[in-house]
Amino acid sequence: MQRRRCTSVRRHHHHHYSAESEMETTDSEAEMMRCISCQEDYDARDAGTCKECYEEANETEEELKREIDDLKAKVAFLRFSSPIDSPLQLQASRFLPPCFSDVVLVASHDSSDSSAAVPIPAHKAVLVSRSPVFRAMLENEMEESRSGTIKISDASYEALRAFVNYLYTAEACLDEQMACDLLVLAEKYQVKHLKTYCERFLVSKLNWDNSVMSYAFAQQHNAKHMLEAALSMITDNMDKLTKREEYLELKAKDPRLVVEIYEAYLSKQVNTAAHKDSSQKT
Amino acid sequence: MQRRRCTSVRRHHHHHYSAESEMETTDSEAEMMRCISCQEDYDARDAGTCKECYEEANETEEELKREIDDLKAKVAFLRFSSPIDSPLQLQASRFLPPCFSDVVLVASHDSSDSSAAVPIPAHKAVLVSRSPVFRAMLENEMEESRSGTIKISDASYEALRAFVNYLYTAEACLDEQMACDLLVLAEKYQVKHLKTYCERFLVSKLNWDNSVMSYAFAQQHNAKHMLEAALSMITDNMDKLTKREEYLELKAKDPRLVVEIYEAYLSKQVNTAAHKDSSQKT
Repeated sequence: MQRRRCTSVRRHHHHHYSAESEMETTDSEAEMMRCISCQEDYDARDAGTCKECYEEANETEEELKREIDDLKAKVAFLRFSSPIDSPLQLQASRFLPPCFSDVVLVASHDSSDSSAAVPIPAHKAVLVSRSPVFRAMLENEMEESRSGTIKISDASYEALRAFVNYLYTAEACLDEQMACDLLVLAEKYQVKHLKTYCERFLVSKLNWDNSVMSYAFAQQHNAKHMLEAALSMITDNMDKLTKREEYLELKAKDPRLVVEIYEAYLSKQVNTAAHKDSSQKT
Repeated sequence: MQRRRCTSVRRHHHHHYSAESEMETTDSEAEMMRCISCQEDYDARDAGTCKECYEEANETEEELKREIDDLKAKVAFLRFSSPIDSPLQLQASRFLPPCFSDVVLVASHDSSDSSAAVPIPAHKAVLVSRSPVFRAMLENEMEESRSGTIKISDASYEALRAFVNYLYTAEACLDEQMACDLLVLAEKYQVKHLKTYCERFLVSKLNWDNSVMSYAFAQQHNAKHMLEAALSMITDNMDKLTKREEYLELKAKDPRLVVEIYEAYLSKQVNTAAHKDSSQKT
């Protein structure tokens, strides 16, 4: 009751003020409201939300932030200390604690390079929990399980190190080369979470210059999001495509992939035409 | 330029409309704006935000939700399959895959109960990564590390099972008893994340009936948030305190804790008095 009376007094005051000032000013002043968030006045055209919805949205934001903090704490709790920080040869010394590893991974990419032979310690339980391929390999008592050594072909020592590290920590420091290397390993050992991570990174780095190579790479390693993004970039620039060196190389090496580019382009043209047609009708 | 002209035309139209209608109506209509969120009209008193801030807040919310999805995926990736689902005696059968455990935990709470002797399989690497107490125990080649058996005193089999499960999954199904049991283990083995989780649950279940017991429990197990919450509830109801049975028990068993209740009450009274005093002066 008290509140209503207050309002009518305020309105009355407003009227009084209106009578004193010019008509043009009154109209726009009556329309003005102050934004709680940016503290600037706004008129009907720029109206956002009422106070209640603003407060609700604020509460939601606070809740979401709390949830994020909780999830971050959970990630920190679940994250493993990577066994890579204490490689086997150092574990023998009494300065570093043991990591209780029961298996090693060896990159057999470049056997000429002596560093390739450095084994990376790991835990069967971790590998099995992160990759269905390692699970099948280790649980079925295959050679790798008995020997305690898993050979990873076609991977550099650095890439394998980063791969194992990701299995323990869900973290990787990516550049384009490392993202490609890790995507290949993630696809091979079916570590979906890592594959998504690499794909996102590579899509963010996509440009006209690397689009054809990215397209071929995505095809080869079954990276669908990256494939779509690269294909879309290529078909948007068809007029420049045939002059590119990578195009000629791809045509020679894998003409089927070139055919798929043309098919995607054609289907895009048909869709665009259909869209234009339907928008002209309405 | 085009936009400005539009605006002035609209304003002009508005003027025209105002002239036709009653003054009172015009004023309140001009003040009304439509909330984008709840679709209801609001006036100056209930103004929330302008459109720009609303859209910005919306974007922030979307971003936070994406971050939550990413973090949830990370948690799912980092979460371990608990070794408890495949206890040792079943692992011998060929139907369940091995979990590659290298240590067992045994609850030595009630040795008369035969189920207490059931060992719970685990991995040294996991225990070490979650608890500094297990780390010291296992890395320093103490008896537990050599024998591969860790005896956990004063814990039921169920509590230990839930404890180990939490170390692998960061999940626990709590009731008040289980939250107390897990808090005790979390404090003993310094698993902070679990302790916070149990404490939050117990604080949410705090009421006048369990406040004195909760206070004593929190004191004993160094649960500061729970202690503060319980103490605050007790000192808010001092007039009823001395009639409570738990109070008499606590006074007999641990009079120091009762003294601390009175000290907290006194300090609260002094603070309240000081607050009143300063607000009267202003």
